[in-house]
Amino acid sequence: MTDMHPAAERGFTTQEFEQRTQAAQKIMAGRGLDALLLTTEPEVRYFTGFDTIFWLSPTRPWFVVIPASGAPVAVIPEIGAPSMALTWVSDIRTWLAPQPEDDGISLLADTLRELMPGGGTLGVPMGHETHVRMPAADFRKLQENLGGIRLADGTDVVRSLRMVKSESEIAKIARICSIASSAFEDLPNHIRAGDTERQAFAKFKISLLQHGADDVPYLVGSSGPGGFADVINRPTDRVIADGDMLLLDTGSLWGGYSCDFDRNYAFGHAADAAKQAYDLAWRATEAGLQAARPGITTTDLWGVMAKVLEDGGCTGHQIGRMGHGLGMQVTEWPSLMPGDNTMIEEGMVLTLEPGFAFGGNKMMLHEENIVIRADGAELLSRRAPRELPIIS
Amino acid sequence: MTDMHPAAERGFTTQEFEQRTQAAQKIMAGRGLDALLLTTEPEVRYFTGFDTIFWLSPTRPWFVVIPASGAPVAVIPEIGAPSMALTWVSDIRTWLAPQPEDDGISLLADTLRELMPGGGTLGVPMGHETHVRMPAADFRKLQENLGGIRLADGTDVVRSLRMVKSESEIAKIARICSIASSAFEDLPNHIRAGDTERQAFAKFKISLLQHGADDVPYLVGSSGPGGFADVINRPTDRVIADGDMLLLDTGSLWGGYSCDFDRNYAFGHAADAAKQAYDLAWRATEAGLQAARPGITTTDLWGVMAKVLEDGGCTGHQIGRMGHGLGMQVTEWPSLMPGDNTMIEEGMVLTLEPGFAFGGNKMMLHEENIVIRADGAELLSRRAPRELPIIS
Repeated sequence: MTDMHPAAERGFTTQEFEQRTQAAQKIMAGRGLDALLLTTEPEVRYFTGFDTIFWLSPTRPWFVVIPASGAPVAVIPEIGAPSMALTWVSDIRTWLAPQPEDDGISLLADTLRELMPGGGTLGVPMGHETHVRMPAADFRKLQENLGGIRLADGTDVVRSLRMVKSESEIAKIARICSIASSAFEDLPNHIRAGDTERQAFAKFKISLLQHGADDVPYLVGSSGPGGFADVINRPTDRVIADGDMLLLDTGSLWGGYSCDFDRNYAFGHAADAAKQAYDLAWRATEAGLQAARPGITTTDLWGVMAKVLEDGGCTGHQIGRMGHGLGMQVTEWPSLMPGDNTMIEEGMVLTLEPGFAFGGNKMMLHEENIVIRADGAELLSRRAPRELPIIS
Repeated sequence: MTDMHPAAERGFTTQEFEQRTQAAQKIMAGRGLDALLLTTEPEVRYFTGFDTIFWLSPTRPWFVVIPASGAPVAVIPEIGAPSMALTWVSDIRTWLAPQPEDDGISLLADTLRELMPGGGTLGVPMGHETHVRMPAADFRKLQENLGGIRLADGTDVVRSLRMVKSESEIAKIARICSIASSAFEDLPNHIRAGDTERQAFAKFKISLLQHGADDVPYLVGSSGPGGFADVINRPTDRVIADGDMLLLDTGSLWGGYSCDFDRNYAFGHAADAAKQAYDLAWRATEAGLQAARPGITTTDLWGVMAKVLEDGGCTGHQIGRMGHGLGMQVTEWPSLMPGDNTMIEEGMVLTLEPGFAFGGNKMMLHEENIVIRADGAELLSRRAPRELPIIS
């Protein structure tokens, strides 16, 4: 029971990593950055291919430096050396971590001084949706040890590259979207009123794995009579009953890339208010699908969906945006919202995610995943049913 | 097929959160901290009970402030308000995130100034095994907006509290250790030579869920003829063959708490070198089990296991320590290693994890999970078999 998407292969060619690195170096040159320091999992994986779940342990920092030219340099704990040696990176410098009094800081400072012999400017992603994954005291110590090297925000380098996906990235996202679509379509066959939320989530997670997902790191949702108030919940022991609505929203992974979409179900029968809210969200999504294309902005695309919701009588929502980028992470740059104003380009993978409150404190949230092609949006998730599905 | 551990219940009483908060405030007072700022998932959950997988999205920061007295104050994106309202925290301040130009920073600065009207010192975890989960540029902006409030390292507050577990925390860890033990014992019934690593990992992950794990965020391992070189790998398409060794190491979750232990298997037959390495690791673990008790240090406990390995002819290893704390995260403070010197106390939950290289570049790694009681170690994982299990 495995979905096939013949175009998707795991991993990337060395050529693709070289292209990513050279593209970063071109942007760095234009911004006056002489090197770029990366400390977080997606950035390290994007440029090196280094792929381990070991990042879940907070104990050890991991560093990769993109020099002004040439391949990335890894400065990592010894325990990661065998995995890093499988990547295209050949300059791998290690220390025996953990070593709290000097956990790679002097090795990293030496490496940076060697790569920037004349001093200069080191880019570090410090902007929105980033963080520096190392102890703050060590980050300060590093800065004190850099001599003539000054720091500048390097967010734009990774943001602009990671927002536009290659065909091999798109193929991976398409594959996990197809897997999750199949699992959602299969859901009415094994989840029913009488299950607890916890049982329903567990069945759906196992189904996703059986359909071919590598992992299901993100699964949230809610159930409640005629709707629910919270869309980022973990499951509870609440028993799903006739008349309930159920939302499941998953960021499952294949080949290190994520889907991020949800589906709504009713049990036994659906209240008119829920049906109407579902219809409105479906139509807002449809408007977004029709409007998404290169050359309009994320804010324009937000506006198209917002107008449908407003015309339908919605006055507010609590989510702050109506979609976002998607790739290695379940949410990535950009955001579909007022003020974002990112120009949409061919190759961007986005979620369309109109959400709103209805019937007092209930929430409705729809989500589809798309890739931007020259002539418009291509669906990666299989379109949600036109009418609210009712599980009897 | 669900393991029962009657003592384990999900969640915690309000009283336990009050005790944690008051204990933190006592340590803060002793260290001259007038408030404590928390930005990472485990710390926020430890003091509030706020439990969502939404942290996987890098888009939004989340803040909790522990004042000098009274309950924690949450400063969080609007989307999290319904979930936070389910906790014991009543002072919940929200903004409509994402809002890159001011993503909660002025709201947080206002809150801190209100909670520290006379200025003072704000603790922020900045030490080993911590990071500040917000954009570095926003963290700087926050500091510029704090007026008479200065920052100091608050790592010790959370470190000293989180290292010693309550009985209700221990019960959760015991339950997931029992679930994982059952899944490991069941593994020879469904994994065999001819499976790929990827198939074997998927079967084991589904088995963990069927045995009752809430989630399996951490699963690494390796296979290879007579052994393997890398202990933090994701699975590959390598076909497991007769004569292979297989390692699986999982950090599965129940009720928000993790196990972290591994098991080794041979297929068909085992080489003498592998059997001997297994025996040595088993004996080193046994020595650790006998020695672990209140009043010795993490470094002493490391020494006991290291001596067995040295006497067995080992000269080095690449992992840097032989165990660590365990709780909400798959690895926590302290580390069993030279230089750590943490005094072991009743209620600490630890892994014992002697590992070493053998036969050239092969690795052997054993792991058990224990809780420290007044009279010594109580096993939470069910002890690994005395002899290397062979799957025929």
